[in-house]
Amino acid sequence: MLVNCVAYQDGRKLAEIRKEEISEYVKRPDAFVWVALKDPTPEELEEMAREFNLHQLAVEDARHGHQRPKIEEYGNSLFTVLHVIELHGDEVNIGEVNVFVGPNYILSIRQRTEHGFGEVRARAESEPELLKNGSGFVLYALMDNIVDRYFPVVDQLEIELEKIEELIFAAETPKANIKALYGLKHKLMVVRHAVEPLIEATHKLYGGRVPQVCVGTQEYFRDIYDHLLRVSSQLDGLRDMVITAMQVNLSMITLQENEVTKRLAAYAALVAVPTMIAGIYGMNFKHMPELDWMIGYPLALLAMGAIDGVLWFKFRSIGWI
Amino acid sequence: MLVNCVAYQDGRKLAEIRKEEISEYVKRPDAFVWVALKDPTPEELEEMAREFNLHQLAVEDARHGHQRPKIEEYGNSLFTVLHVIELHGDEVNIGEVNVFVGPNYILSIRQRTEHGFGEVRARAESEPELLKNGSGFVLYALMDNIVDRYFPVVDQLEIELEKIEELIFAAETPKANIKALYGLKHKLMVVRHAVEPLIEATHKLYGGRVPQVCVGTQEYFRDIYDHLLRVSSQLDGLRDMVITAMQVNLSMITLQENEVTKRLAAYAALVAVPTMIAGIYGMNFKHMPELDWMIGYPLALLAMGAIDGVLWFKFRSIGWI
Amino acid sequence: MLVNCVAYQDGRKLAEIRKEEISEYVKRPDAFVWVALKDPTPEELEEMAREFNLHQLAVEDARHGHQRPKIEEYGNSLFTVLHVIELHGDEVNIGEVNVFVGPNYILSIRQRTEHGFGEVRARAESEPELLKNGSGFVLYALMDNIVDRYFPVVDQLEIELEKIEELIFAAETPKANIKALYGLKHKLMVVRHAVEPLIEATHKLYGGRVPQVCVGTQEYFRDIYDHLLRVSSQLDGLRDMVITAMQVNLSMITLQENEVTKRLAAYAALVAVPTMIAGIYGMNFKHMPELDWMIGYPLALLAMGAIDGVLWFKFRSIGWI
Amino acid sequence: MLVNCVAYQDGRKLAEIRKEEISEYVKRPDAFVWVALKDPTPEELEEMAREFNLHQLAVEDARHGHQRPKIEEYGNSLFTVLHVIELHGDEVNIGEVNVFVGPNYILSIRQRTEHGFGEVRARAESEPELLKNGSGFVLYALMDNIVDRYFPVVDQLEIELEKIEELIFAAETPKANIKALYGLKHKLMVVRHAVEPLIEATHKLYGGRVPQVCVGTQEYFRDIYDHLLRVSSQLDGLRDMVITAMQVNLSMITLQENEVTKRLAAYAALVAVPTMIAGIYGMNFKHMPELDWMIGYPLALLAMGAIDGVLWFKFRSIGWI
Amino acid sequence: MLVNCVAYQDGRKLAEIRKEEISEYVKRPDAFVWVALKDPTPEELEEMAREFNLHQLAVEDARHGHQRPKIEEYGNSLFTVLHVIELHGDEVNIGEVNVFVGPNYILSIRQRTEHGFGEVRARAESEPELLKNGSGFVLYALMDNIVDRYFPVVDQLEIELEKIEELIFAAETPKANIKALYGLKHKLMVVRHAVEPLIEATHKLYGGRVPQVCVGTQEYFRDIYDHLLRVSSQLDGLRDMVITAMQVNLSMITLQENEVTKRLAAYAALVAVPTMIAGIYGMNFKHMPELDWMIGYPLALLAMGAIDGVLWFKFRSIGWI
Repeated sequence: MLVNCVAYQDGRKLAEIRKEEISEYVKRPDAFVWVALKDPTPEELEEMAREFNLHQLAVEDARHGHQRPKIEEYGNSLFTVLHVIELHGDEVNIGEVNVFVGPNYILSIRQRTEHGFGEVRARAESEPELLKNGSGFVLYALMDNIVDRYFPVVDQLEIELEKIEELIFAAETPKANIKALYGLKHKLMVVRHAVEPLIEATHKLYGGRVPQVCVGTQEYFRDIYDHLLRVSSQLDGLRDMVITAMQVNLSMITLQENEVTKRLAAYAALVAVPTMIAGIYGMNFKHMPELDWMIGYPLALLAMGAIDGVLWFKFRSIGWI
Repeated sequence: MLVNCVAYQDGRKLAEIRKEEISEYVKRPDAFVWVALKDPTPEELEEMAREFNLHQLAVEDARHGHQRPKIEEYGNSLFTVLHVIELHGDEVNIGEVNVFVGPNYILSIRQRTEHGFGEVRARAESEPELLKNGSGFVLYALMDNIVDRYFPVVDQLEIELEKIEELIFAAETPKANIKALYGLKHKLMVVRHAVEPLIEATHKLYGGRVPQVCVGTQEYFRDIYDHLLRVSSQLDGLRDMVITAMQVNLSMITLQENEVTKRLAAYAALVAVPTMIAGIYGMNFKHMPELDWMIGYPLALLAMGAIDGVLWFKFRSIGWI
Repeated sequence: MLVNCVAYQDGRKLAEIRKEEISEYVKRPDAFVWVALKDPTPEELEEMAREFNLHQLAVEDARHGHQRPKIEEYGNSLFTVLHVIELHGDEVNIGEVNVFVGPNYILSIRQRTEHGFGEVRARAESEPELLKNGSGFVLYALMDNIVDRYFPVVDQLEIELEKIEELIFAAETPKANIKALYGLKHKLMVVRHAVEPLIEATHKLYGGRVPQVCVGTQEYFRDIYDHLLRVSSQLDGLRDMVITAMQVNLSMITLQENEVTKRLAAYAALVAVPTMIAGIYGMNFKHMPELDWMIGYPLALLAMGAIDGVLWFKFRSIGWI
Repeated sequence: MLVNCVAYQDGRKLAEIRKEEISEYVKRPDAFVWVALKDPTPEELEEMAREFNLHQLAVEDARHGHQRPKIEEYGNSLFTVLHVIELHGDEVNIGEVNVFVGPNYILSIRQRTEHGFGEVRARAESEPELLKNGSGFVLYALMDNIVDRYFPVVDQLEIELEKIEELIFAAETPKANIKALYGLKHKLMVVRHAVEPLIEATHKLYGGRVPQVCVGTQEYFRDIYDHLLRVSSQLDGLRDMVITAMQVNLSMITLQENEVTKRLAAYAALVAVPTMIAGIYGMNFKHMPELDWMIGYPLALLAMGAIDGVLWFKFRSIGWI
Repeated sequence: MLVNCVAYQDGRKLAEIRKEEISEYVKRPDAFVWVALKDPTPEELEEMAREFNLHQLAVEDARHGHQRPKIEEYGNSLFTVLHVIELHGDEVNIGEVNVFVGPNYILSIRQRTEHGFGEVRARAESEPELLKNGSGFVLYALMDNIVDRYFPVVDQLEIELEKIEELIFAAETPKANIKALYGLKHKLMVVRHAVEPLIEATHKLYGGRVPQVCVGTQEYFRDIYDHLLRVSSQLDGLRDMVITAMQVNLSMITLQENEVTKRLAAYAALVAVPTMIAGIYGMNFKHMPELDWMIGYPLALLAMGAIDGVLWFKFRSIGWI
C-alpha cells in the first residue's frame, strides 16, 4: 500500500506526486523523492524496483522479510533493514522497516507494524535547512525515530525485572518467578537480535569510508550509533541481572527447603517426645510404682507439656519454628 | 560417480560432454565446464585432479573428507568445503560438499548426502544473464542452496526447544527433559561447527581483496554472508536459551523436592498426632478418669479427627498439601 | 545556574567576566574562557550554545541528560559526557557532567550532583605553567578529578563485599546475604556503565590522531586512561568474586541443609529407639517373663538410656550432632 | 643423543655425515643438513648451537624445556616449540619437540617422548620434488606429523565423554562420574594448552610477511593451520559438553534425592498408618466395644492391610514407589 | 633509601658514584648510570627526578604507588611499573618495582618488598658483551628476574589446588573446601592483575615501533613476553579448574545429602517396623490367640529380628547403609 509519495528540492516540499512521475523527478539534479510503502504486494515492490532501479538481491530481501537488521551498499545506494519492536504484554512483536536510499530518492517500506512515520516527515519538513542534506538526512530521521523507540521497550523490560526481583526475595511464588525470568530472558534475546547487528552497521555510516549519501550527516549517524550503544549496554546489564536473578531464585528455593526441613524436624520432635513418654507408661511391667500414684497421670501429662514447652522455646530461639 | 558434466558459454549450455573432452573445453577462453561428482572413488578424484590440474593438498582433503567448512585459495582457483546438515529424528547427519572453482571450470563433489543440486543447475541455466558471470556465479548458486537449507534445520531445533520448554514447566518428566536438553545442546554444537567457520571464509569472497573468480559477484556472496550471520545469531540465541532451560529444569527439580518434603511433613503430622493421643490413652496409670468415661473412647477418636481436621485445613491453606 | 565565568590568558586569570562578554573574549587569540554551569535551564543552555556556537546535537544531549559517558568530536571542538558516582548507603547516585571544549573556551555543566569543581579551578590557577596549555588542560583537570573519585567508590564496594564474605562463611543469614550480593552486583553494574565507555573514548585523546585541543597534553590523558583501566580491572575482579560468592552462598545453604538433615536424623533416632523398646514391653502377651521381674521396669529404662547414650556418642563422633 | 645426521641436495639424500662435517655442508649453497637429537645433554646442545650458530635465547629455551608451543624468528632462522601429546590411560604425557630451521639446516630435538620421526624422514626422502623446497618443507613435514597425531587424542577424549554421558543418564555412579568429568576437563585443558598457542604461530607462516624459509610452502602451512583449527574447534565443543555434563550430573543427583525422598515418604506411610491403628486399639478405655468383638482383632489386621494396600497402589500410580 | 649507584661504560663497571655525580656521568655519550632505590622518601624521589629530568606524572605515580603494571613512554624514556608477588601462607603480598629508563640511565625503585636485585646486577656485570647494549638490557634483566619469579608462585597455587581437589573428592570437609577454593580464586585474581596488563605492555617493546632504548634487544623482550603468556595461560587454566572444582564441591555436597537421606530412611525403617509389630501386640482385643501362646513373645521378638535382618541385607545390597 502506497502511504506517501512526495518530491523535495532544496529542503522544501515540491509536491505530492503520482507513482508514474517518480522517474521524472528522480532525474532532476537537486531534487529527491521520498516514497513510503506499507506491507506492499510483490507487484508494488517490483514497480518501485523499476522506478528506482533497485538491486534485485535487496528487493528479494524486502519481499521475503524476516531479515536481520543490516545496512548494505549497492553501488551508490544503500539498503537498510531495521526492526521495530513493540511489547504487547508477554508478546514481543517485531516489525520490519526496509529503507532504500539513493542520491535522489528514499523508499521506506514498513511491514507487520502499525507504527507509521508521519511525525518523521512532519519534523523533517519543518526543518528545511537540515532537509537540504537530502535523502541521507531522511534516512537519519527514520533511523533516529526507530532507535529512540527502543528505549521505552528496554525501560519496560527493566520494570518487569524489578517486579520479578521483589517476588524472588518474597520467595512466595518460586515457580512463577522461574517462568517469568525465562520469559524475560527470551524477550531480551529478541530485542538484542534487533539491536546488536545494527551497531556495527551504523558505525560504517560515520567512520572510515562513508557511503556517498551519508556524507555531510556523519555526526547525526554517530548520534544514532551512540544511542544504540546505550540500548545495548542496558540490554547487557539486564541480561546479566536476569542470569543472576535465576541463581538467586534457585538459592531462595534451596533455602526455603532448608526452612521446611527445619520446621518439619521441630514439629516432629514436639510429637515424638510425648509419644515416647506415653509408650513408657504403656509398658506392662508389674512393678511400675508411678502407675499406682494418684497423680501419676497428671504428672506424666505435665512432663510431656513441660518438655514440649522447653523444646518449643529452644526451636524458637534457633529459628527453626 | 559422475553425475553431470556440462560445458557452458556466454551463460548458455553448450553440450553435455564426456570426461575426456573436459581439458579441451577448459582451454576455450569464454567457456567453462561444470562437473558434479557423488561419493567419488579415489581414481575418479585423481582423474579430475589431472583434467583440472587441481592442487594436491586440496585433492587430499577431498579424498579424506571430514574437513571443517572452509574456502581456500590455490593460485587463481578456490577450494571450498561445505557441510550439508540433515536432521533425521534425533540424529544429525553431516554431509560434505567440496567445490573446486577455477576461471573456467567448477567441480562439485558431494559426499555422504542424498541431497543433489539438480535444481541449482536448472535455475542457473534458466538465468543466462547471471550465468554469464561464469564459474563464480555457480559457486554462489551452490553455496546459496546449501546455506538456505540451514534455516529449516535451525527452525526445527527451535521447535524442539519449545516442546522441551513446555515439559520443563509442566515438571513431570525432569529426567527426560535433562536428556532432551543435553541432546539438543549436542545437535546445536554440530550445526554450529558447520556454520561458524564458513562465516569468516565467506567474508573473504566479497570484502577486501576478492579472489579473481568472485569478482563481479561480490554482492551475491555478501548475501550469503548475511544469511550465515542470521543462522549464527539464531544458533547463539538457541544455545543461550538451552543453557537457561537447563538451569530452569534444575530449579524445577529442586522446587519439586520442596513440594515433596512439605507434603511428606504434612501427612506425617496427620498420622503422628493421633498416634500420640492413642499412646497417651494406652498408658497404664491406675487413675486415669477418662478411661472410665462411657464416652471416653468416642471422645478420643473425635479429638483425633478434630485435630487432624484442623491440621488438614492449615496445611491446605499454606499449600503444603 | 551559572557558577563561574572566568577568562584566562597565558595561564593566568584575566578576570571574572559577564556572560555577555564571553563572545568578545573568545575572539582573542591566546585567551580562553572557562564557564561552569549547574543544572542549567534550557534557556541558559541555549544562550551558551549561541555564545560558543555549539553543535545542536551535543546541546540536545546535554539538555536531555542521561547519556552514556562519551567523548565526541564536532569539528575542532569536543563534547564530553562524564558520570559522577556517589554512594549513599544502598543507593548509587549517578550525576552527569557535560563538558564542551573548544580551542578557546571550556564549558562544564554539572547535573544532578552536589559535587562541584572549585578545587579543580583553584589547583589549575595555582599552576600557570600547566594552565598555559589552554582549554585541553582544563578538560584533563576536570576528568582527572572525576575519575579519581571513582577509586573510593570501588574501594567502598570492595569493603562491602568483604563484609558479605564474612557473613557467607558464618552461614547465619543466607537470605540477607543473597540480597546483599544481588544489590552489590547491581551497584557494580551501574558503576561499570559509568566507567567502561569512557576507557575507549579516553584512548582517542592520546593515541592515534589526537583532537586539536588535546595536542600537547596527551601524556596527561594517558594517565587518566591508565586510571580508568585500573578502576575497570578492579570492577572486573569484584564482579568475578561476587559471582563466586553467590555460588559459595548456595553451597553453604546446601551444606547447612545437610547439617540439619543429619541432626534431624540423629535426634529422631534418640527418640525412636526408646519408643520401640517401650512398645515391646507394652505388648500384651501372657508370657513375658520380664514383666514380672521386680527390676524389669528400671532395667528397661536403663536399657533405653544406655542405648541412647551409645547412639549419642556415635553421632557425636561422626559429627551429626 | 644423536639420532640422525644427513645432508640433502636438490631433494635427494647426499650422505649420512658426522657431526664434525656439519659446518662444512652447511656452507654449500643448495644443500641442507637435517639433524635429529633425542633428549640431548647440555653439551650436545651447545655443540649444535656452535655448528649452526643458533641464538642463545632459543638454545636456553630448548635446554630448559617446558616451553609453551611457539614459533619464533631469529634473523633468517626459525625456532619452533611443539608439544607431542600421548594419552596413557588417565595420564596425559606431554613431550616436547624443538625445531631449529635455517636456510640450509634443520635441527629437530625431541624430549620426553618415545615418538620418533623416522617415518617423516622416509616419506620426505621418497618425494624428492617436494624435498627440493628445502628445510622449510621438512619443518612442514614434522609439524604435519605432530599435528595429525592430535586427532586420535581428541577422538579418544570424545569417546571418554560418551562413556561418561551414558553413566550420567544411568545415574548409578554419580560420584565416579563427577570425578571422571573433572579428570576429563583437566585433560582437555592440557591438550588445549598444546594446541591453542600454535594456531596463531602457524598463521604467521603463511599469511602476511612469511619467514624466508617458508616461502614457497605457504599452502602447506595453511593446511596445518586448518587442521589445528579443526582440533581446536573439537576441543571447544568437548569443553562445552563437559561443562554441560557436569550440570546434568548435578541435576541427576538432585533428581535422585527427590526419588529417595518420595520413596522414603511412601514407605514411612505404609508403616505409620498400621502403627496408628494399633495405637488406637491399644488404648485402655473401659468402653471400647470393638475390643470385645470376636472378630475385632482380625478386622483390625484386615483394616491395616487394606489401608496399606490402597496406599501402595496410590503411591505406585504416582510413581513414588 | 639509596641501595646502589653505579656508572657503566662499554659494558663494564666504571665506578660506584655519589648521587651528586649522577648528572655528570649522564652527560657522557657512551656511559650509563644505574641507580637502585628502596622505599624512597618523597625527597629522595624528587632529587632523582631532578638529576634525571623525569616526567612529573611518572614521578607522581611512583610516589603514590599502587599503580597497575604498565610501560609508558615519555619522550625517549620509559616508565615501567612491575608487581612483585610473594605468597606468605594465605596472604599474597604485592610489592611494586618502578623503573625509569633513559638512553643513559636506569633508575629502579622497589617498594613494599624485601626482594632485591643484587643478583641481577651481578649477572649483568658478568656479561659485559650483553651489558654493552646499555640501559635497555638492564631493563630486560630486571623484568626477566621479576617475571621468572611468577612461575614458582603459580606452581604453588597449582599445588594448593591439587590439595583441595583431593579433599573435595574425599568429601569430608566441604565447608573448609569452599573456603579454600574461594581464597584460591581470590589469590588467582590478585596474581592475574599483576600479570595481565604487563603482557600487552611488553608486546610494545619488541613488535611494531619499538622505544629507542629497547632497539637491539627486542628478542630479549619477546622472550619475556613469551614467559608472561605462559604464566597467563597457566593462570587461565587454574581459574577454569577452580570454577569447576567449586561446582564439583557443590555436587559432592548434594550427593552427600543424598547419602544421608538414604541412611536416615534405612535406619528409620529398622526401628519403625518392630515398633509397628509391638503396637499390634499391644492392642487390647479380648480375642487375640497369639497373646496366650507360650511362645508368643519369643516369636514376636523373632519376627521383629527376622524382618529387620531382611531389611538390613536389602538396604546393604542397594547401598543405602
